[in-house]
Amino acid sequence: MIERILILGTGLLGSSTGLALRAAGFAGTVQGWDKNPNESAEALRLGAIDAIAAEPLSAARNSQIILLASPVYAILDWMEQLAANLAPDQLVTDVGSTKATITETGNRLFNQAGKAAFLPGHPMAGKEIGGAAAADGNIFRDAAWIFTTEPWISSLTRDEVSPTAASLAMHWMQWVRDFGCRVMELEADRHDELVAWVSHLPQFLSTALTALIESEVGDAPELTSVGGRALREMTRLGSSPYSMWRDVALTNTDKIAAAILALEQRLAHLRENLRTPELRDEFELANRFRKS
Amino acid sequence: MIERILILGTGLLGSSTGLALRAAGFAGTVQGWDKNPNESAEALRLGAIDAIAAEPLSAARNSQIILLASPVYAILDWMEQLAANLAPDQLVTDVGSTKATITETGNRLFNQAGKAAFLPGHPMAGKEIGGAAAADGNIFRDAAWIFTTEPWISSLTRDEVSPTAASLAMHWMQWVRDFGCRVMELEADRHDELVAWVSHLPQFLSTALTALIESEVGDAPELTSVGGRALREMTRLGSSPYSMWRDVALTNTDKIAAAILALEQRLAHLRENLRTPELRDEFELANRFRKS
Repeated sequence: MIERILILGTGLLGSSTGLALRAAGFAGTVQGWDKNPNESAEALRLGAIDAIAAEPLSAARNSQIILLASPVYAILDWMEQLAANLAPDQLVTDVGSTKATITETGNRLFNQAGKAAFLPGHPMAGKEIGGAAAADGNIFRDAAWIFTTEPWISSLTRDEVSPTAASLAMHWMQWVRDFGCRVMELEADRHDELVAWVSHLPQFLSTALTALIESEVGDAPELTSVGGRALREMTRLGSSPYSMWRDVALTNTDKIAAAILALEQRLAHLRENLRTPELRDEFELANRFRKS
Repeated sequence: MIERILILGTGLLGSSTGLALRAAGFAGTVQGWDKNPNESAEALRLGAIDAIAAEPLSAARNSQIILLASPVYAILDWMEQLAANLAPDQLVTDVGSTKATITETGNRLFNQAGKAAFLPGHPMAGKEIGGAAAADGNIFRDAAWIFTTEPWISSLTRDEVSPTAASLAMHWMQWVRDFGCRVMELEADRHDELVAWVSHLPQFLSTALTALIESEVGDAPELTSVGGRALREMTRLGSSPYSMWRDVALTNTDKIAAAILALEQRLAHLRENLRTPELRDEFELANRFRKS
């Protein structure tokens, strides 16, 4: 059914999706384009794409599925450009980290009479470094790939949406399953709430911890030798690129700020109870999460 | 030279040391004892020890090296009991997580005329779960094994210390190298300062984060599916046992509290700058640590 896919943004997630498609047996054509020609060249070299699109908008017009795989604001820009250039039988989907703004924008521009369809998606997979060179089709294995349901999946069955595009969406979800993902449906606002806790908070926390340790003991010659696995793990996300996380911070600000504030309060409570039995309660609560 | 070792406390680190000794070719006898008979039985089953000591104090009197491998307060208790029961040609060493209190106590009870020698040690290795069943001789590979120098290593050459005990200390350090460790010397107070940043802060932070997530979204059915590698890594230390970390908190309180407070301030700064270019500075600082 799906024969022509275009990946706009061939960095880590875009190229990993291309590799996962091939590994899962996709036999059609995968074109790619990136504003950085080195990224698309690397994606081609790795076999993540079959060809580099000469011009992204005309390539989009000739594709059945257009996958947007860039930071959130670049995805929003593409959505604006594509809405005016695509036909009803085409499907646009994405891998953006936050979903409320993308959902609102998609609601306004797609899934209406005469417009292409839009399916907002978010694979819960990634690495602390970006770029096609780090791409790996296996990062999706056993990960959740979330699609936001309201009003998307239901709206794909509305009369205004072409049956062809709705069918493309169903086939795309099947490829995602074939990548080894668990397909999940979540309401966009609930998605952003949940990822604020389980993805964004760990990221900003690791950035704060890593920046703090760099400031406090980064110049101690003993440091590199002393730190063990705990330090390496807790600071791994310190390598994450600002360019991607800036967009996450800007499109999920309130929920992230609430999560960070709650952590500050939790840390203060723990700090004030280093010598009291309250410390035991915190360890027991943490132990319980890890057992569940 | 070393023929008889006794490990008091055959949990994760004690049993891992026994396994590492065997893997490195130690041909003498390793006895073990644990206040929990299940732990010593498991250590014996794994081959981490050759025999379970029937009575720890008489076993200690018949050993050349006594390794204390329990939480810090239990180590301090053993030091009190052993000081009155050992002879000058014997060496006591430990794997305790904090070193200032142990160093002070050892200074008072050992390394004097008529007393056994004491060498404070700390391997920068571990796991988030305790117990002999999790023991692994390879956890020391490429880790730092710190010995606190002042006044220890120099005091081992003092006239009051028996040359036999001083020589046992040198041989013990060589075994530690044979485990694959980098031997490091640090002043005890500097050790506690450094581990407050690179070991204790990551632990208490992970406990606070994990407890917070358990409180906030622990009952969300979507949660387990959504969290990816970042969440798993950042909460791994949430499994750590209170029993061990209570002693760390009690013996390094001020330095840990200072590190936690600094992190709270750093998080507040980041939270207040989610929408400003200051966020870029934090990411760049964190990126720099990871590159160094």
